[in-house]
Amino acid sequence: MSPKITTELLKQLRQVMKNPKYVQEPVQAYIVPSGDAHQSEYIAPCDCRRAFISGFDGSAGTAIVTEQQAAMWTDGRYFLQAAQQMDNNWTLMKMGLKDTPTQEDWLVSVLPEGSKVGVDPFIIPADQWKRMSKALRSAGHDLVPVKENLIDTIWADCPQRPCKPLITLDLSYTGVSWRDKIVALRSKMAERKVMWFVVTALDEVAWLFNLRGSDVEYNPVFFAYAVIGMNTIRLFIDGDRMVDPAVREHLQLDSTLEPEFKIQVMPYGSILSELQAVGAGLSSKEKVWLSDKASYALTEAVPKAYRYLTPYTPICIAKAVKNSSETEGMRRAHIKDAVALCELFNWLEKEVPKGTVTEIIAADKAEEFRSQQKDFVELSFATISSTGPNGAIIHYNPVPETNRTLSVNEIYLLDSGAQYKDGTTDVTRTMHFGTPSAYEKECFTYVLKGHIAVSAAIFPNGTKGHLLDSFARSALWDCGLDYLHGTGHGVGSFLNVHEGPCGISYKTFADEPLEAGMIVSDEPGYYEDGSFGIRIENVVLVIPAETKYNFKNRGSLTFEPLTLVPIQTKMIDVNLLTQKECNWVNNYHQKCREVVGAELERQGRHEALQWLIRETEPLVRVQ
Amino acid sequence: MSPKITTELLKQLRQVMKNPKYVQEPVQAYIVPSGDAHQSEYIAPCDCRRAFISGFDGSAGTAIVTEQQAAMWTDGRYFLQAAQQMDNNWTLMKMGLKDTPTQEDWLVSVLPEGSKVGVDPFIIPADQWKRMSKALRSAGHDLVPVKENLIDTIWADCPQRPCKPLITLDLSYTGVSWRDKIVALRSKMAERKVMWFVVTALDEVAWLFNLRGSDVEYNPVFFAYAVIGMNTIRLFIDGDRMVDPAVREHLQLDSTLEPEFKIQVMPYGSILSELQAVGAGLSSKEKVWLSDKASYALTEAVPKAYRYLTPYTPICIAKAVKNSSETEGMRRAHIKDAVALCELFNWLEKEVPKGTVTEIIAADKAEEFRSQQKDFVELSFATISSTGPNGAIIHYNPVPETNRTLSVNEIYLLDSGAQYKDGTTDVTRTMHFGTPSAYEKECFTYVLKGHIAVSAAIFPNGTKGHLLDSFARSALWDCGLDYLHGTGHGVGSFLNVHEGPCGISYKTFADEPLEAGMIVSDEPGYYEDGSFGIRIENVVLVIPAETKYNFKNRGSLTFEPLTLVPIQTKMIDVNLLTQKECNWVNNYHQKCREVVGAELERQGRHEALQWLIRETEPLVRVQ
Repeated sequence: MSPKITTELLKQLRQVMKNPKYVQEPVQAYIVPSGDAHQSEYIAPCDCRRAFISGFDGSAGTAIVTEQQAAMWTDGRYFLQAAQQMDNNWTLMKMGLKDTPTQEDWLVSVLPEGSKVGVDPFIIPADQWKRMSKALRSAGHDLVPVKENLIDTIWADCPQRPCKPLITLDLSYTGVSWRDKIVALRSKMAERKVMWFVVTALDEVAWLFNLRGSDVEYNPVFFAYAVIGMNTIRLFIDGDRMVDPAVREHLQLDSTLEPEFKIQVMPYGSILSELQAVGAGLSSKEKVWLSDKASYALTEAVPKAYRYLTPYTPICIAKAVKNSSETEGMRRAHIKDAVALCELFNWLEKEVPKGTVTEIIAADKAEEFRSQQKDFVELSFATISSTGPNGAIIHYNPVPETNRTLSVNEIYLLDSGAQYKDGTTDVTRTMHFGTPSAYEKECFTYVLKGHIAVSAAIFPNGTKGHLLDSFARSALWDCGLDYLHGTGHGVGSFLNVHEGPCGISYKTFADEPLEAGMIVSDEPGYYEDGSFGIRIENVVLVIPAETKYNFKNRGSLTFEPLTLVPIQTKMIDVNLLTQKECNWVNNYHQKCREVVGAELERQGRHEALQWLIRETEPLVRVQ
Repeated sequence: MSPKITTELLKQLRQVMKNPKYVQEPVQAYIVPSGDAHQSEYIAPCDCRRAFISGFDGSAGTAIVTEQQAAMWTDGRYFLQAAQQMDNNWTLMKMGLKDTPTQEDWLVSVLPEGSKVGVDPFIIPADQWKRMSKALRSAGHDLVPVKENLIDTIWADCPQRPCKPLITLDLSYTGVSWRDKIVALRSKMAERKVMWFVVTALDEVAWLFNLRGSDVEYNPVFFAYAVIGMNTIRLFIDGDRMVDPAVREHLQLDSTLEPEFKIQVMPYGSILSELQAVGAGLSSKEKVWLSDKASYALTEAVPKAYRYLTPYTPICIAKAVKNSSETEGMRRAHIKDAVALCELFNWLEKEVPKGTVTEIIAADKAEEFRSQQKDFVELSFATISSTGPNGAIIHYNPVPETNRTLSVNEIYLLDSGAQYKDGTTDVTRTMHFGTPSAYEKECFTYVLKGHIAVSAAIFPNGTKGHLLDSFARSALWDCGLDYLHGTGHGVGSFLNVHEGPCGISYKTFADEPLEAGMIVSDEPGYYEDGSFGIRIENVVLVIPAETKYNFKNRGSLTFEPLTLVPIQTKMIDVNLLTQKECNWVNNYHQKCREVVGAELERQGRHEALQWLIRETEPLVRVQ
């Protein structure tokens, strides 16, 4: 990797920072955050402004350019990559290290007195604006919104904002019509005495209208906003997408509808002026509901007294609880996904010993097998295909420079998933195609014990996911091992593979209580730097549990694995398992064999079926 | 319980709310919080202002009196008691119920436009002031500080503020001299670039100067503040206490000392003016460190730009990590405490069948046995002595109206502890003096499994206590049982029985990571309303653990029980224990027998020794 030469670009940026065409007064610093206007995890090429100006294209990082300096804040995952991708114009600010200043402290230390710091108000979330603005003000500076994005003004060959066709999802996939979702949303609004709701997150717009898109890689979403009133629906979306007869019919754009369900389609770019108009017309008792992570620009469009901000929107919470159509879809998707992985692992078992399979080839092969399945749309995230020491790099994606050949001497870790029209998958399996060492088996077995401890946990209704995190670590902790990531995240239904508001993590965040119908991942791991990585991940559905005393009718919950891919028994030291754990593995494999076996049979995939049958032989514990 | 008649008192209060002698402008509402000026958990009689004005004397509650109304906010523990103790002048505001307004919302709904709401700025913590002030201001009202406490002006027979003699603790108890504590504090101040530190919590003043007092029941503290500069020490304390030659020598008040260790003794009441003088003399780079829970009055004395507020002070954090003198003292105290409880339980075993032992008699007997032990000072909290259904009331203290007789048919729960000059104890044992039912044994055994799961847990250095909470619940959860309180709290060393900044709770609060030397309680329970309560509590010391792989030298921690009182084996269903749990119980009992047995022998308490030997017979698991 050679660094991007940014001398000329920075010169241009510093010029527009003083150009009255773009800024009322010159700004002495300009902040370039990672995100897009919807605070998306995955962004479109046109939103990769920080990568454009600096060369550093990791998923997290904030650039700040002053008249003299340019600095990049990123976290430990990206220290090496950022250092390689950026030229000498840039100072790398290693977040998490003791001596690294915060962005605010650094700005205060380098700025001349009474400086203006510019930022695109559409990109910066309102809560972040507030924090930074306060810190700068107390040091005599000002954070100012610069309406035109200054990077865009110098980005000659900036790609167009994607505007791809939409997919309509009928009731068999969604279980609930968009009209009923609007009715439910309005009832939540009425409960909170709110008159307007602004939908800013892309997956929330997609979910609300039962539409999907492909504007962003891996996330089946499309660029849009919506503003829902008690009697109006405004959808802000660009392009010819609304010409598609299927979409028009789905949204009943040409039907005579009750006025409160009539969707007004407006240009994507008009959201701000429309919201300002809404804001200007509010009377004293009318509140507007926004996520507290919405952009500063949209938040400011509503006068402060009329704002109602919450960390999780009612859509985010409703979306997390899957209805029976969605869970059935997720089940189907996971069976198809398991078929693809049985094919893959059967193929790898034969090919790896030949020494011709690289991490990239394995990842491509996984995609190939998945793409053969019905309703396959795309991958749900960049495949982590890693062998040997690469497995210890938690967010590794193989590239030609790092691409390693799979062998019978190293552990192979595959974390991958797909978007099917009926569901989203995310599964990690760790395999050995030769003979694992006793130490590798020991570590794998502790990880498995943690995986089972979460998957089989029984807990009272209303428990938050973070209370389950330590269950996943207990067996590792007993031997002085741990892993430095959370244990699980929410999973969308043919939507984003990472979604809120629930999860399983030692990081105490404001997670919502788990309830039946929520879907999360269960993915403990263990990583030995320079040697290997182990992770065992299933997507699991929260279901009611039966207990002897049932928490005095408060009710009990547990998990049902949706992922049905064998866990390699060769890697298990069965004597480290309790009888209960051993039974769990055998029951799980029995279910894989029955359910996925039937589908392999149906699809005529006999060799993969034989592999499945071999891999699901019951464990026997010697006592 | 008959209610207190408050008509006349409220009339008087409403008069002083308009009296220009006390208020610049009339206040339309006056807030009477629970606390004292140090945000203490236990308060002195002179600080029980809310109880005086309302009659309600529970440990938590806030009264607000307006020109027309009087309202009391309290939580579920006290709904019944508050309703019984207050007359018809008062409206009970049941916190936690859906329709109960917050104090702010209620004030806004009842106050005339542009009202003033008064509060004693010494009693209200700064963070609470901020929240309430903001809410009132946005509704057009003002929160105003009323310097003279209005309750005190009408409280004719208000008790004097206690001013009892001090106890000096030498190095054999504290391990570190007060001078060295000041040196360490100043080094923390220098690290944070802070010039002044204000000590507001009573246990922090006591700890810093290696002094103890008895101004407040159960907590061996005394009314004082301190302000520590880089070269000065000011102690704000009243009375003749500084005349005591032992105290003068301990603090070296009459020695020629380096000026930076010379303690200036000042009147308790002069803290505000002295701190204002400090605040007025600050130059631009000088900061003053305060707890963010310090009173509004003291926080306001420091100009905003010079304040450095943290949730936990460096004293709070240093105090939590006990040195070897303190842990040895705690060990000694717990052995003496165990001797007293062996005597008690032996006595109860003989006396309960006679039907003459009430909850109060048992509590008194426990105190009697404790008071026979060396260096006994007082109890560390009000004894929870509860039998049968009273055991299910988690914060129960027996009073004549509720006093129940112990019998061979009911479970008895005793949660008690003492202050010894060398340490603080807090222990809960649940006993049956007849034959427990299978269900009682089952529940007890799940609680025991939870207790062991925490006590034997191994976890990496730096783990926060709240991550261990679910370990205590897992066995209960599996059967659909739970308990609605946290699992553990920090314990002081001859100081407050509840102290921060660590603990073990499902409530995610900002707890500091556990480290070796910290002392917490481990006290899961199960409560069957109307029938019985079960709790098993040990005080445990955080110690380094040995593990196979030691977290790559990050280090491992576990707990060592300091409490050494047998856990009644009669209550255990041994077939519900794993072999590992069974071994834990047997090892624990072996240690009780050895360590406490030796002390019983030394003290010539032969009958109690026989009881101990009987109660520590090893469990045998039938497989």
